[in-house]
Amino acid sequence: MTATTTTTAPATVISDGWVIETFEGFLKTGYATTGAPVFDAHSDFQHVQIVPTQALGNMLLLDGCMMTTERDEFIYHEMITHMPLLAHPNPQSILIIGGGDGGAVREALKHPSVTEVVLCEIDGMVIDACRQHLPTIAGPWLDDARVTVKVADGIAYVRDCDRSFDVILVDSTDPTGPGEVLFSPEFYQNAARILNPGGIMVNQTESPIAMPAAYHRVQRRLKGIFSVVAPYTATIPTYPGGLWSWTFCSNGVGPLENIRDAAAAQLEQTTRYYNRQIHRAAFALPNFMRQADRPILNTAANH
Amino acid sequence: MTATTTTTAPATVISDGWVIETFEGFLKTGYATTGAPVFDAHSDFQHVQIVPTQALGNMLLLDGCMMTTERDEFIYHEMITHMPLLAHPNPQSILIIGGGDGGAVREALKHPSVTEVVLCEIDGMVIDACRQHLPTIAGPWLDDARVTVKVADGIAYVRDCDRSFDVILVDSTDPTGPGEVLFSPEFYQNAARILNPGGIMVNQTESPIAMPAAYHRVQRRLKGIFSVVAPYTATIPTYPGGLWSWTFCSNGVGPLENIRDAAAAQLEQTTRYYNRQIHRAAFALPNFMRQADRPILNTAANH
Repeated sequence: MTATTTTTAPATVISDGWVIETFEGFLKTGYATTGAPVFDAHSDFQHVQIVPTQALGNMLLLDGCMMTTERDEFIYHEMITHMPLLAHPNPQSILIIGGGDGGAVREALKHPSVTEVVLCEIDGMVIDACRQHLPTIAGPWLDDARVTVKVADGIAYVRDCDRSFDVILVDSTDPTGPGEVLFSPEFYQNAARILNPGGIMVNQTESPIAMPAAYHRVQRRLKGIFSVVAPYTATIPTYPGGLWSWTFCSNGVGPLENIRDAAAAQLEQTTRYYNRQIHRAAFALPNFMRQADRPILNTAANH
Repeated sequence: MTATTTTTAPATVISDGWVIETFEGFLKTGYATTGAPVFDAHSDFQHVQIVPTQALGNMLLLDGCMMTTERDEFIYHEMITHMPLLAHPNPQSILIIGGGDGGAVREALKHPSVTEVVLCEIDGMVIDACRQHLPTIAGPWLDDARVTVKVADGIAYVRDCDRSFDVILVDSTDPTGPGEVLFSPEFYQNAARILNPGGIMVNQTESPIAMPAAYHRVQRRLKGIFSVVAPYTATIPTYPGGLWSWTFCSNGVGPLENIRDAAAAQLEQTTRYYNRQIHRAAFALPNFMRQADRPILNTAANH
């Protein structure tokens, strides 16, 4: 995730043996805890908490949003990382915007072609807290010689960037409040500008069930900048709505044209979600994802 | 769903504007309600409740388990029904075990080849309550001339059945307590016996995330009876773990061999989840579903 404050932070309560997030006033998701938060502090940007849960291990919350957990994080991080890196013929330089938990860095380093990963996370507290309390995610990978950690604003970084990358991963929070800028046309234009020819950007693009308006708005914006805009999905049990989307963007390369199957076959020996069948299947979208005028949920905000 | 009591019913509370299900002591899922339950009674088999929710319309609960809702039921019912009916060359006779809400009947009747649907639901109260309060699911379809509703025990029905069917849909509750019998080798043997040559059975087979032990046990049992056992998935936002599985079973016909694409193309004009791409993609399984010894969640029961 990237670290920007949300204006509509969920009302999350950690007490009586539970962490319970209330999303948009209509949905509660709770997990049994095994103790008090092991980290709880306010950074310049947001409220950072890590709480131990029975079922999912340590869980990171930002402004009350369940962001990642030790036991299910592999789904999100494999799907945001391996889909573009195995679709690119030779991914060497990777830029990750947000993603301060380090999971996308860890996955990117599994690719032998990768020579450089730049992690641009606005909130140093997130990185420090995750290194201490989510070691299987943030662990030693951030110390790898190929990795540069920049504690900086991702918007400014892409705007001012005078170099380019093969792959950009936008591992952001929700598009509300200040986080909105990572979903802005200006950000997408700058990201497109700093992609090498044949480069790929993948963004997390919210739940098509719980945040359909945001999902469809992002799709429209991306289509204004990129010629190839291909959403794909996986199920994240801790996220509102369960079904989550990412979007594969490029100017020229289709998402299924150049999948490096030999590399994927090797990688899938170590992954817990990703495999070659999943790679192709993830782009098959249920009909309701194409029906912007017929959201599943009846919600007031439908943000 | 079929109507059999569970022994480990979740502790579900409907009060203070919320319906909140607590699953196996580690997971809470709650939806804001818009009023008191519109139906609340105990049948000979279970506690039947229908509660109005803001986001999902009327929601059916059996013994406190969220079973189906007006707004997301299409995912479950399209996926249990159309996958086998479009894989069968000419499905005429359909048996549905459980499924008292009527959703699978409604979907089966969309197929022009279907001449007969037998719905065998143990709990007449479920049928009556759904007809009254979930009319878009149970609605007029149960009165169709092709439909026979039997309020009867599905176990006994398949054991004593002296006729056969092209497709059997096992639309059951969880495999705990008395519901266990619909996941028993004896039941599967009888179901296999009353399938016509080339026939297909599809069972709901639980969440590979929230109930991995149950999921893997069922897979082993089905493989003892059927030569083709092919699980597939979709995301159901109201079910524990989000990711849900069904299993395609037959003695001879592979799940992707004979998909009737012309019929599927016509059907997908009306469906909200199912389409031809989804049909094939749903059989792509994440690696963790093949790793019975590495469940995602750390749970005590892991039932």
